[in-house]
Amino acid sequence: MPIITMEGPELTKEQKAKLIAEFTNKASEITEIPERAFSVLIKENPAENVGVAGKQLSEMKE
Amino acid sequence: MPIITMEGPELTKEQKAKLIAEFTNKASEITEIPERAFSVLIKENPAENVGVAGKQLSEMKE
Amino acid sequence: MPIITMEGPELTKEQKAKLIAEFTNKASEITEIPERAFSVLIKENPAENVGVAGKQLSEMKE
Amino acid sequence: MPIITMEGPELTKEQKAKLIAEFTNKASEITEIPERAFSVLIKENPAENVGVAGKQLSEMKE
Amino acid sequence: MPIITMEGPELTKEQKAKLIAEFTNKASEITEIPERAFSVLIKENPAENVGVAGKQLSEMKE
Amino acid sequence: MPIITMEGPELTKEQKAKLIAEFTNKASEITEIPERAFSVLIKENPAENVGVAGKQLSEMKE
Repeated sequence: MPIITMEGPELTKEQKAKLIAEFTNKASEITEIPERAFSVLIKENPAENVGVAGKQLSEMKE
Repeated sequence: MPIITMEGPELTKEQKAKLIAEFTNKASEITEIPERAFSVLIKENPAENVGVAGKQLSEMKE
Repeated sequence: MPIITMEGPELTKEQKAKLIAEFTNKASEITEIPERAFSVLIKENPAENVGVAGKQLSEMKE
Repeated sequence: MPIITMEGPELTKEQKAKLIAEFTNKASEITEIPERAFSVLIKENPAENVGVAGKQLSEMKE
Repeated sequence: MPIITMEGPELTKEQKAKLIAEFTNKASEITEIPERAFSVLIKENPAENVGVAGKQLSEMKE
Repeated sequence: MPIITMEGPELTKEQKAKLIAEFTNKASEITEIPERAFSVLIKENPAENVGVAGKQLSEMKE
């Protein structure tokens, strides 16, 4: 613990590695909790499963 | 913000679009927060990943 | 199952009751899953715990 | 309600069935809430989507 | 990682300690992942924030 | 969307503001999604509600 979760779009392996490193580094710095205590989960969502302002994201992209 | 998430079974694209629209519309009406502020996430779960009353949903369907 | 969660601001008891009823009713209609199967969780977040566009919501309200 | 969710690695069908049964049984015993009220969600995450101590789990396994 | 979360009612300190121990023990046994890797979060929800079958749990208790 | 959530200990208002700004800034940079699209939720958990390696965090602190 702590646990950081990002719900977002599909990403590349490199982007996920960077997010994991940066989230952990910044959160450790700010909370003064050692990096080894952190877990990160990157959740990738297909556009048709996401709604913004009542619209399906997949529809907004077409 | 706000963020509405539904954890449920696999659904069609049309069902997901309707859920996104209806959740956003009703929640905006009730909370008086404008629709544009809302995010919706539809999470689809395979039946073997879901437990109800201690049983695997996939087993209950057979 | 299914489970509908709303992460949002602090609300009145009546608003929470309406959200529970409307979310369940609409989701049951759209998914054809009986209302009795649904759980709803309303999560209330203090404004200083919420970020929008990188800003603390409590700062945006002042 | 209550709802138990496990975020973890990919698992076999049998492991998921056992987790559902054990989580529900123990939680019902401890909380004195009947088993029929419980939902369980098993969430499987690819190793490259998981960070531990700032590192991508998929990198730690190689 | 893994992370086990229970969304449920208000509980005593002892109940929460038992849930943490039992969830971790059983999940470690079933997944063969060492106990030290597990995090558990117990989330307590006021009855008026919970819906079951479209009804507010606080109303069902009166 | 995207939505970043941190489950962690109780924090100060300033720490939460910094987390919101840093998470949004780094995630926007890495994903090339504009900052305005991001929501952040900081979830604070009492130590007795958190388990690490099967133990209640509140017990580990005494």
